[in-house]
Amino acid sequence: AQFAARQAAKEDYTRVVNSLKECYEKIRPLEETYKFDHFFSPCLTDAEFEAKPMVLLLGQYSVGKTTFIKHLIGRDFPGIRIGPEPTTDRFVAVMHGDQDQTIPGNALCVSADKPFTALSKFGTSFMSRMEASVCNSRALEFMTLVDTPGVLSGEKQRIGRQYDFPAVIDWFAGRSDRILLLFDAHKLDISDEFKTCIEALRGHEDKVRVVLNKADSVTPKQLMRVYGALMWSLGKVTGSPEVMRVYVGSFWDVPLRQDHENRALFESEAEDLLSDLRSLPRNSSLRKINELVKRARHAKVHAYIIAHLKAQMPTFFGKSSKQQNILKNLPQEFSKVAQKHQLALGDFPNPEGFRRIIQDYDLSKFPKLSEKAIRKLDTVLTEPIPALLRELRLHDPDDGTGP
Amino acid sequence: AQFAARQAAKEDYTRVVNSLKECYEKIRPLEETYKFDHFFSPCLTDAEFEAKPMVLLLGQYSVGKTTFIKHLIGRDFPGIRIGPEPTTDRFVAVMHGDQDQTIPGNALCVSADKPFTALSKFGTSFMSRMEASVCNSRALEFMTLVDTPGVLSGEKQRIGRQYDFPAVIDWFAGRSDRILLLFDAHKLDISDEFKTCIEALRGHEDKVRVVLNKADSVTPKQLMRVYGALMWSLGKVTGSPEVMRVYVGSFWDVPLRQDHENRALFESEAEDLLSDLRSLPRNSSLRKINELVKRARHAKVHAYIIAHLKAQMPTFFGKSSKQQNILKNLPQEFSKVAQKHQLALGDFPNPEGFRRIIQDYDLSKFPKLSEKAIRKLDTVLTEPIPALLRELRLHDPDDGTGP
Ligand SMILES: Nc1ncnc2c1ncn2[C@@H]1O[C@H](COP(=O)(O)OP(=O)(O)OP(=O)(O)O)[C@@H](O)[C@H]1O
Ligand SMILES: Nc1ncnc2c1ncn2[C@@H]1O[C@H](COP(=O)(O)OP(=O)(O)OP(=O)(O)O)[C@@H](O)[C@H]1O
Ligand SMILES: [Mg+2]
Ligand SMILES: [Mg+2]
Repeated sequence: AQFAARQAAKEDYTRVVNSLKECYEKIRPLEETYKFDHFFSPCLTDAEFEAKPMVLLLGQYSVGKTTFIKHLIGRDFPGIRIGPEPTTDRFVAVMHGDQDQTIPGNALCVSADKPFTALSKFGTSFMSRMEASVCNSRALEFMTLVDTPGVLSGEKQRIGRQYDFPAVIDWFAGRSDRILLLFDAHKLDISDEFKTCIEALRGHEDKVRVVLNKADSVTPKQLMRVYGALMWSLGKVTGSPEVMRVYVGSFWDVPLRQDHENRALFESEAEDLLSDLRSLPRNSSLRKINELVKRARHAKVHAYIIAHLKAQMPTFFGKSSKQQNILKNLPQEFSKVAQKHQLALGDFPNPEGFRRIIQDYDLSKFPKLSEKAIRKLDTVLTEPIPALLRELRLHDPDDGTGP
Repeated sequence: AQFAARQAAKEDYTRVVNSLKECYEKIRPLEETYKFDHFFSPCLTDAEFEAKPMVLLLGQYSVGKTTFIKHLIGRDFPGIRIGPEPTTDRFVAVMHGDQDQTIPGNALCVSADKPFTALSKFGTSFMSRMEASVCNSRALEFMTLVDTPGVLSGEKQRIGRQYDFPAVIDWFAGRSDRILLLFDAHKLDISDEFKTCIEALRGHEDKVRVVLNKADSVTPKQLMRVYGALMWSLGKVTGSPEVMRVYVGSFWDVPLRQDHENRALFESEAEDLLSDLRSLPRNSSLRKINELVKRARHAKVHAYIIAHLKAQMPTFFGKSSKQQNILKNLPQEFSKVAQKHQLALGDFPNPEGFRRIIQDYDLSKFPKLSEKAIRKLDTVLTEPIPALLRELRLHDPDDGTGP
């Protein structure tokens, strides 16, 4: 029964991904016609639609990030290194595959079938600190886990890393469906560097969960103090008034002592964390749908803007100076477009950014707006996508955020 | 044995108080000669030296402040009111005495034998919201407990109170040896008004302890969340990076269920809190000694300043204009005094404040400085006070801050 359920979930997920790809095929022509990818973000690749929910693990060194992954996937992954000293020295995307294999960073960022091609922008010194570790595990069928180098303190972190660590974290955080912050109950000293790292997660608070690991290595009373101190510091560091969910336990293969005072608590916490991770595929589908809807709305607005500006261009002479003139008053032009086509001003781009890019184009060279392309995009928004959302809600009324 | 120990502690305490009073008698003549009380703070009264350590209880309504006091002193106190609705409508100083009695605020602030005479400055509408409740209880032999009206939310708090609530809290906080912030595990909603009240405790963080009361009314797992949420919010509200000690338990006369999962924890927490309160008399002695030392240093500096300024006055004519001139450059005069007598500039008053008060005096009317009075003051600082401090340390090497 469990296997059947998993199989069904997998098929659901594949169906959503395929529907989304089909939807995007109806939007893409309009994007290409009006160079939307130059204004907004590159056209989506199949690998991005197919990407499994991504879970990012962050923490100071030796808190048990790598051990956590090993425990979750039930096996060693290629290249795994665990130890009491700083061990993991790179970002490792632990991904599903039938054959065990590690893919070095340079190869990874040119693999069109993996969602990491954009990482090349962080340069070669980052690429040598990134790899994918492919292996076969049931847990990996539903998610990709990203192991990270433990945050060190002082100069080792700030100068020792040859790449922009916070920027890389930010990139991964944006693409992750869940961010797990691990802490060690046995040595809870939050370094300034890790604080900076937590602050870099601003805006992604909804994805963040906290794990207070190795909780069985202190007495229940000590644990209470440690947990309290953790909440105290987190409350100070994060902007959000909402309390972050903390899972307290010991996440590795060594079984808990039978008579441990907190046994029941730790077991229930582990179960909560697992069911949170199990809900990710569904949440990830929701996230992808939402992002596609957002993209489609922006693409439509973008097409209307270009068409509107182009319509004001003269047929033969004085194009260049006329274009200069038109671009002078973009906010006003945007308002006209919004009014004429009943579009939300919130879907309009920032006029400054738009002007900077459009300057390099000749407005008159853009083709005329095809009402058919717009209608095609509109049908996507009004039919298949609402159907997908309905389906997801029907299949699982739980909101997936756990207790 | 316990009785003997208590008796000994009581005698120690009385001895310290008496020594301090004797010390002050050697300082007071110098204070009076140079009107130090007008510049710094009123001369100390016997009641202030004799005042027991004061414990201030603060919290939103119905968290169990009054019940906590009843539990601690082992009996009802005169005028006690307990109930699920806002009940305590005034500040109640629960004090030791052989005969049960309540003393209304207006009588209290003219009772020279009670340390509340300074409260009259908060006006009559406050006086009608203040009283002392005197009764016989062993716990009260060592401390005075101050019950307070529960902090309400919204207009009921801001407008309903006819006096300056935060200012009154600040007055009590300054004179307390311990401030207990009570929270109800069963309804942990920290109102903006209570946040303001906590913020008003800034500068007194070292005195603050937190009680998470009624902790047995939720499951252990819920308790963990509530405790975490409390720490999260407290971390945000208070400035200090140091984590406040929170005592988790249920502080009333109803016994805990025998099989309660957290029984051992709650019992150990209650024991910790009690031993913290038991350490107060010693800490209170330390505080009084420190304050007397501070006062003596300021009084000495004050005497030197006046003598220095007076020495520059002409004997017969042009006094008034000369005095104006001298007062123009007080910071420079202060430096001279500091250098001449090797005094720390940190012990000097604020020049602005000093000028405002000295203006009303004729400098030439002050008597000449008696080196004998200064030596008398110096002997206090170099002999009886260091001896007292040594004695306190010998008697109890524990630093009294608890685990
Ligand atoms: N739940 C646990 N309880 C006790 N010890 C643990 C637990 N998990 C891991 N450890 C131990 O902690 C040490 C560090 O583990 P691990 O290498 O997984 O940490 P890490 O966070 O990946 O460190 P790094 O940042 O250096 O890669 C190892 O010795 C490991 O055996
Ligand atoms: N430890 C406890 N566990 C459960 N209930 C309690 C506990 N302590 C007090 N209560 C109940 O909570 C209610 C409020 O108690 P109490 O009047 O002592 O609170 P208070 O903080 O003094 O309120 P106020 O601010 O209105 O004076 C009463 O019904 C009391 O019986
Ligand atoms: Mg590691
Ligand atoms: Mg009360």
